Formats: sequence, C-alpha cells, structure tokens
Amino acid sequence: MLSEKLKKLRPYVPGEQPQDRAYLKLNTNENPYAPSPRIRTFLQDFDVGYLRLYPDPLLGDIREKIALRYGIDRDQVFVGNGSDEVLSFAFYACFDGIRGPLLFPEFTYTFYPVYCDFYGITYKKIPLEPDFSIDTRRFLETPNSCGLVFANPNAPTGISLPLDKIAHLLENYPRDNVVLIDEAYVDFGAESAIGIIKDFENLLITRTLSKGMSLAGLRLGFAMGSPALFKALFTVKDSFNSYTADSLSLKIGEIAIGDEDYYRGITEKIIAAREYLSSELQSSGWRVLPSMTNFIFASKEGIPGQTVYSRLKKEGILVRHFDIEGIKDFVRITVGKQGDMERFVQVVKRLF
Amino acid sequence: MLSEKLKKLRPYVPGEQPQDRAYLKLNTNENPYAPSPRIRTFLQDFDVGYLRLYPDPLLGDIREKIALRYGIDRDQVFVGNGSDEVLSFAFYACFDGIRGPLLFPEFTYTFYPVYCDFYGITYKKIPLEPDFSIDTRRFLETPNSCGLVFANPNAPTGISLPLDKIAHLLENYPRDNVVLIDEAYVDFGAESAIGIIKDFENLLITRTLSKGMSLAGLRLGFAMGSPALFKALFTVKDSFNSYTADSLSLKIGEIAIGDEDYYRGITEKIIAAREYLSSELQSSGWRVLPSMTNFIFASKEGIPGQTVYSRLKKEGILVRHFDIEGIKDFVRITVGKQGDMERFVQVVKRLF
Repeated sequence: MLSEKLKKLRPYVPGEQPQDRAYLKLNTNENPYAPSPRIRTFLQDFDVGYLRLYPDPLLGDIREKIALRYGIDRDQVFVGNGSDEVLSFAFYACFDGIRGPLLFPEFTYTFYPVYCDFYGITYKKIPLEPDFSIDTRRFLETPNSCGLVFANPNAPTGISLPLDKIAHLLENYPRDNVVLIDEAYVDFGAESAIGIIKDFENLLITRTLSKGMSLAGLRLGFAMGSPALFKALFTVKDSFNSYTADSLSLKIGEIAIGDEDYYRGITEKIIAAREYLSSELQSSGWRVLPSMTNFIFASKEGIPGQTVYSRLKKEGILVRHFDIEGIKDFVRITVGKQGDMERFVQVVKRLF
Repeated sequence: MLSEKLKKLRPYVPGEQPQDRAYLKLNTNENPYAPSPRIRTFLQDFDVGYLRLYPDPLLGDIREKIALRYGIDRDQVFVGNGSDEVLSFAFYACFDGIRGPLLFPEFTYTFYPVYCDFYGITYKKIPLEPDFSIDTRRFLETPNSCGLVFANPNAPTGISLPLDKIAHLLENYPRDNVVLIDEAYVDFGAESAIGIIKDFENLLITRTLSKGMSLAGLRLGFAMGSPALFKALFTVKDSFNSYTADSLSLKIGEIAIGDEDYYRGITEKIIAAREYLSSELQSSGWRVLPSMTNFIFASKEGIPGQTVYSRLKKEGILVRHFDIEGIKDFVRITVGKQGDMERFVQVVKRLF
C-alpha cells in the first residue's frame, strides 16, 4: 500500500520533548531565556481576523527585515518553516548526486544523511581531525562531489571554523557546486560567512530563529545566498507548499529580528554560562571540546556517554547522547541559565 | 549549480495576495469571517516563554482534540503545516508510479500534478463528465494505477460526490492502493468519508483549517486514516522536518477545533450567501455549477473567463481565473459576506 521509496527511509530522531514530567532540559539546545518581550505586547493587540487570510507567498516583510539587518538584498533571502525545512529545500534544489556524492563531515547534524535518503542523493562522509575539528582541505582532496554541506559551528561538537578557512575552501572548490553552510549556532560567537556571499554565487547559508532568538516553537528559518539560489529555493517551495511560514509566526519573527539589543543581552549571558560550565567540567577531569555554540560536547574517561545520560535523567536532567561509533563517549549538554549550570555542575560532581 | 530534478519543476501558482491596495478578495477561498473569538482571549494571556521550546514532535494534544471531534482514534490523525504539506507527505508516502500512474480528475486542485513532478510520480488525468462531475466508475475502468486522489467537493468546480458513490469506489478498487480524498471544502455541506475510514485501510482523508475554520494564515491541516497510513506520514515528516507545525499555531488550532458552535454559525451564513450568489447569477444568464463549497465556478456565454477576471479586477474585485483548456470560460468566485455578495452581484450585472 505504501511507496517503495518510503520503505528506505530512516527518519531523523529529534531529542526528547517529554510531556510527562518537568526536567531540566539540556537536550535540544533550546535557549533558556524567553524571546523578545516585544512579542507579548504585539500578541495582546493582535487582530485575529488577520489569520483568515493566506500569508504573503513572497514573504516580503520579513525578507526585507532580514536583508536590512544583515546588509544584503531582499532577493538574497529565503524564509521557511524552520531551518530544517530550508535545509530540506536546499538539498532538493542544489544536490542530486549525479556529478558525485554530496560531502559532509562524518560527525555533524544527523539530519543531513536523512535528507539525502529522502531525495535519493548519494553522499560521502569526510572524517574529522583527531581533535574533532573540520579540516576543509579534506573536502578539496575528494574528487567528483556534487556539493558540500557543513554546520559552522559544527554540531554536536560545537567547534567553529574561522572565516579565512571557509574563504579558502570556496576559492578552491568548483564554482558550479553549491557549498551549504548551516549557521544554526552562529549567534554564540562564531564568524559568519555572510560577508562573502557576494563573492561566491555558489555559497548558501542557512539560519534559524530557534536558538539565538529563542523561538524554537515558532519554526522559522532562513537562507541567504545569490539571487540564483534564492530563486531555486522559491521554485522548490512552490512545488511543495505555497505558504510554509504562517502569518503570525512571520510577524513574531520580524519583531525578534528587529530587537537586537535584547538578544545581545541574553546571548552574552549564555556565553558566560558556557565558559563557566566548560571550565568547571574541565577542572573535574572532563574533556570538553571548545564550543562556540549554546551547548558543549563533553566526555569523561571510563564513563560511556549512555551512562552519563541515564544517570542524569534519573536526577531529572536531560542531556543528549548519540549512540554513534566515534562519539558515543560524549554527551551534548545545552547551556542554560547560570543558576541551572551551577546546579548541573553540582550534580555532575556528585555522580561522576 | 542546481540539481537536475529542479530543472523539471513547474511550481504551483497560488492566487494573488496583493500587498499594494485593498481589493474585495474573492480569489483564494478565504473565509470572510474572523476565526473563533476565543483565540483573541488566548493570545492576550499567552506566555511567550513557551515559544523558546520546540513543539511536541508527536503533536499529541491537537491529535487528541481532532480524534475526539471526529470520533476516531488519536493514532488515525496526522497533523501538518497546512493541508498542502499533508498532501505532499501523502504523495511521497503512498504513491510511486511503479504499479501504474496515479489517477486524478482532469480538472481538480492544480497542485496534484505539481506534487507528482516534485517526487517523480507518473500520473494520468481522468476526464470529468460533460456536467463537470466526477464519475467514479472511470477510475475503476482504468487498469494498473498506483492510487487515486480527488477533492470532495472538487475544486475548482465545487461539485461534491455522495458518500455511497465513494463507498462503491472503495469496495471495487484494489485494497493495496491508497485512495486519497482531499476534503478541504467539506465543511460547507458535502458528505465526509470519515465514517468509512474504519472499513478501508487504504482510505486517507485530508482536511484543512484554512477554509471552514478561517485560519488560512495559520497553516494547519490534518489527515485521517488507518494507523498504517498514519505511521507512514510520520515517517515522511520525520525525514523532512521533525516539527512542521509550530507550537502557537497548534494551540490556536486546538481552540478552533473545539469551538464548533461559532463555526456552525458562520458556515450557515456562508452557505446562505452562496445560494444567494448562485441564484442571482443564474437569473442573469450565468452558468453556475452546483457548489457545496465556499466558492462558485461560473461562466457567461460569449465572455471569456479572462475578460471577466480583468474587468472585475479594474473594479477592485479579485476572482480566480485558470487559463486551462476546458475551463477557461469560467471564473472561480469565493463566497464572501452577504453584503459583499450583493455588491458583487450589482457590479457583475452592470459589467456583463
């Protein structure tokens, strides 16, 4: 009764969103602070009659706001229903496996191989260095690829690539293959590649409002790139679902994008809490990869990541463990508020 | 730089959503009434901190509410980002063109062939009868199909199929092929097939909150069918975007689904306005197909649909015209409030 291609799918498994009891949720990289307080004011006066109309299929207003904020043109901005959707559209638009496999790092966002299977794109995983960083030269050494995708900073490692390494990669990689950089976590201190979009027509950057803007529940993400890539993403959207972002979310997203001061404040607090958490764990004998995100990736010799995950869960603390060879010793811990990080460190020191 | 499959796409073209001036919008079948007033109360007290968390990936609460309302099990309900997305997922999950083409009526929702091209599904259009109705026996006469999809009531004709015809079709069509019924417009008087889901594991029904529930801006749709189809739709979703419905829309959707009385009231008004509009146009010499939707499909001999569309637009009234051989004489007119329909009839009588 079902399609042949369905039988081959191995879906992405998101982090737990338990509905049963209250946990200290450090497992899905949600922002511990509420989104911009301006949103509350907006919702109090919102005319619900607006919802009877379809959204603007061209998403004009929010694209304008994003363009203004990041100093690019409106026709370089695409907006979708979460960066997961934007990534999915980008995979469809840019990669086909015909000229060679799509390349991505061995350990990165685990949705990339799922998109490939969904659309029938062949792929090849490129090993990380022993310190879990990406060496971009490895992409260049691999012949015949149809494109590249990597997260910067990378997940679940948290490690970022400097812009000069990315520029070098783009200068030396074929211009007729798209390089997709997933900047979901860039708000927490890493260098963005937005500034070099104008130099590389084949560079596409995706962003989300889920992490830095504390709007994971809202499902808004966007992409920035050349007008040719922008047009391709619209073609995919209009062949899948004409209106993927709802009109209320779009309005809220506009408000968030405009409230830079508020977000600068909460981001600084998260970065400070990350540094606190990293140094406390390191001083207790943990290995902590250098993070430029709102999470850390950490391991303690002799204790499997699964054990860390399970013991913390019993204490009412959720972290994320990936049962994947090569990183199974680690757990990924979302950075919360300072007080929660202090409590977390206490529990960790007691347990391990 | 772009994928080979992208080059073959011919995107769906949605009705105009003009941002420049105020029109009487009768072109995208939006509900003329605001959604449930309970939504306003909800938004005034909404804790925006809720948005920092990802939605429930299992969409439990709204599935519960839908199941309760329609008298089915929670594991027979799938929810997505507009029925367009739900349809897209259903096409992926159920149809592959391997056992034969997907069948759908020659004139129906013009997104169906777009989904087919998007996923590489072959299809075959089955002619309508001279009165523009669907004769389900024509589906049965076509050998070797991989499934069926049709809208009931059909769009853009507005004509509905009685449930006994649908049951007869399902009894005689192969049980290992899915029959997808798009009930986007069923709230305006047609018979739903929900009551026979239990009898046919291969029956899948899609619904939207855009029309009857006046929430086109919100992007919420759902599907109802056997647990096997439900599971298949979740597999597709989780291979495309783990959270396609945002948490605020889900809450609003729950409220709308629970406010049956309000929606019964506005639906009755729309049906009365439709009957007024139909009879006024008929008495002025228009051909009006018998509609069970919130729109009518009408033509006047000797005046091309394109002319009707253009002249009305000049008057500040938007209707929808499809430049498709066989229906190009018609325009599709959304049913608005009684006052707007009276104004519309006046303008039409003056112009044509």
